[in-house]
Amino acid sequence: MRGTVLYAPRDVRVEDRPDPKIEEPTDAVIRLAATCICGSDLWPYRGIEPIDGPTPVGHEYAGIVEEVGRDVRTIKPGQFVIGSFFACDNTCEICRAGYQTSCIHREPAAPTGAQAQYTRITLADGTLVATPGLPADDLVPSLLAASDVLGTGWFGAVAAEVGPGKTVAVVGDGAVGLLGVLAASQLGAERIIAMSRHEPRQALAREFGATDIVTERGEEGVARVKDLTGGLGAHSVIEAVGTQESMMQAIRATRPGGHVGFVGVAHGVELPGQELFFSHVHLHGGPAPVRRFLPELIDLICNRQIDPGKVFDLELPLDQAAEGYQAMDERRAIKTLLRP
Amino acid sequence: MRGTVLYAPRDVRVEDRPDPKIEEPTDAVIRLAATCICGSDLWPYRGIEPIDGPTPVGHEYAGIVEEVGRDVRTIKPGQFVIGSFFACDNTCEICRAGYQTSCIHREPAAPTGAQAQYTRITLADGTLVATPGLPADDLVPSLLAASDVLGTGWFGAVAAEVGPGKTVAVVGDGAVGLLGVLAASQLGAERIIAMSRHEPRQALAREFGATDIVTERGEEGVARVKDLTGGLGAHSVIEAVGTQESMMQAIRATRPGGHVGFVGVAHGVELPGQELFFSHVHLHGGPAPVRRFLPELIDLICNRQIDPGKVFDLELPLDQAAEGYQAMDERRAIKTLLRP
Repeated sequence: MRGTVLYAPRDVRVEDRPDPKIEEPTDAVIRLAATCICGSDLWPYRGIEPIDGPTPVGHEYAGIVEEVGRDVRTIKPGQFVIGSFFACDNTCEICRAGYQTSCIHREPAAPTGAQAQYTRITLADGTLVATPGLPADDLVPSLLAASDVLGTGWFGAVAAEVGPGKTVAVVGDGAVGLLGVLAASQLGAERIIAMSRHEPRQALAREFGATDIVTERGEEGVARVKDLTGGLGAHSVIEAVGTQESMMQAIRATRPGGHVGFVGVAHGVELPGQELFFSHVHLHGGPAPVRRFLPELIDLICNRQIDPGKVFDLELPLDQAAEGYQAMDERRAIKTLLRP
Repeated sequence: MRGTVLYAPRDVRVEDRPDPKIEEPTDAVIRLAATCICGSDLWPYRGIEPIDGPTPVGHEYAGIVEEVGRDVRTIKPGQFVIGSFFACDNTCEICRAGYQTSCIHREPAAPTGAQAQYTRITLADGTLVATPGLPADDLVPSLLAASDVLGTGWFGAVAAEVGPGKTVAVVGDGAVGLLGVLAASQLGAERIIAMSRHEPRQALAREFGATDIVTERGEEGVARVKDLTGGLGAHSVIEAVGTQESMMQAIRATRPGGHVGFVGVAHGVELPGQELFFSHVHLHGGPAPVRRFLPELIDLICNRQIDPGKVFDLELPLDQAAEGYQAMDERRAIKTLLRP
């Protein structure tokens, strides 16, 4: 099969690789209908996260089950399935509490890499969710988005306790931030402030439900959010970047007693304890337990109530993955969909 | 009147001071039935928090209203009242959300110092809560405890989302930690792990409802809590110290999806963002909005359902405040009550 391998920073190659096979009795192998490049793939691509030699990449997937291991009970060949980046048993006490990305049996869900024609999925019964019947082709991008960025934006909104009557601010205008806006809208937020200085992203934020756009960042961005909220700050802030600046912007834009949901993978972040203490905010986040939300998200997509696939503004054949990385790195594309 | 002044680290003096007077129309002056020394008073006493010259000290108070300003509507002379360390209007949007210690009009409640015979209370209507009639003398220590340490331990438990069926761990065996144990018990926790290596404090923790004692600290303490919770960690952890070690102990002893309520005033704490991200804990805390809980706590005390006054294991005349500080500094006393 063809699969994508990161050799070194900015050296992405699509090459012939061995077809994945069932290795554990709980595995499944799926044929990808579509795959994509994640903002978090840019950390190793940019050399900020080190890699140990050539690494198969990609962790977002949606496709048809080809084969399952002998212990797989609920997932069947021929089903269209979606799963998250971490595999889970979905039965342990942590999974049952809704934190499947901290499952006691957590492991990478697609160890052979999902930017490929086929991928092996671990703990298939716990990890995968099947759609009701085979979805229409035009729903595939949205279902693929549910695999990570939609589920992550959704968790950000849930972690930030978004709800009716609340004002929500979203820090970060990548795919996760934009889908945080969509989630906030679906969860009933009264007002949604998207923080973005990029016009096409502002437009998509508005389409997803943003009521206000703030172009300022850092302390100026915080001041603008306070201006818009009677000096108090937002009730809920979704942080979808993962830097020191974005975390402090999120914490400072939240009113006392409000909630920060942080879903940008933290890189080099140190939170000042005393400021956090006196901020009175609630802080919750981490790797999104997408599995918790998948049934609901699949339902919303299949009923055409939401269209998160709009975050894909570049579509390329799998063999052009390198161009997809470059476009995202240069912010020419929000998110690249790859067709195997 | 006699009042307590901190002149320099370890130099506490009780001396003649001017009687406090009504300065703002929203003030009240109260005659203290009792006052006390707080764990947080030890930070400046030990020189860790700098002071600008001689400073009147004390922020915990319970007593009889002597006089009120012309704009005070609900509080009347002759009432027995309790309030918290920060004054609040109790009407702004932040107060109504239950975060009175972040009131938009927040200011110190007892600017003339509460370790004294009389003290001036700001924003009296918002800040003070009157007891139903004059309380019996033996209830005074418990009512005084409600002014800060009980309300703070209670907030720690609420912030940690303590509730029925949950396992709670408490980091810190000072008055706040011990009253966090009492709060957890009142809020229905199934199991309460007190972390303490001091026998008299262990005994009081058990009396307040602790079911398990862990004497280990740091990583060993975390390992013990995990041993006691099937390897997962506690559902709820109350942090009542405020150091880097205690915060990390609290975060690491909490299961993914669990809650840390941190009420120890943070000193020199820096939280590692990536570890917090992958911990999946909820983090909430800060200066306890004691005002939110006062009506309920006064009720529990006046009905003799709880006896938080047991944390006072040393009682001295006000004039011996210096000895009270020394006893707490040397951990000979958990908490010192001063009789004016």
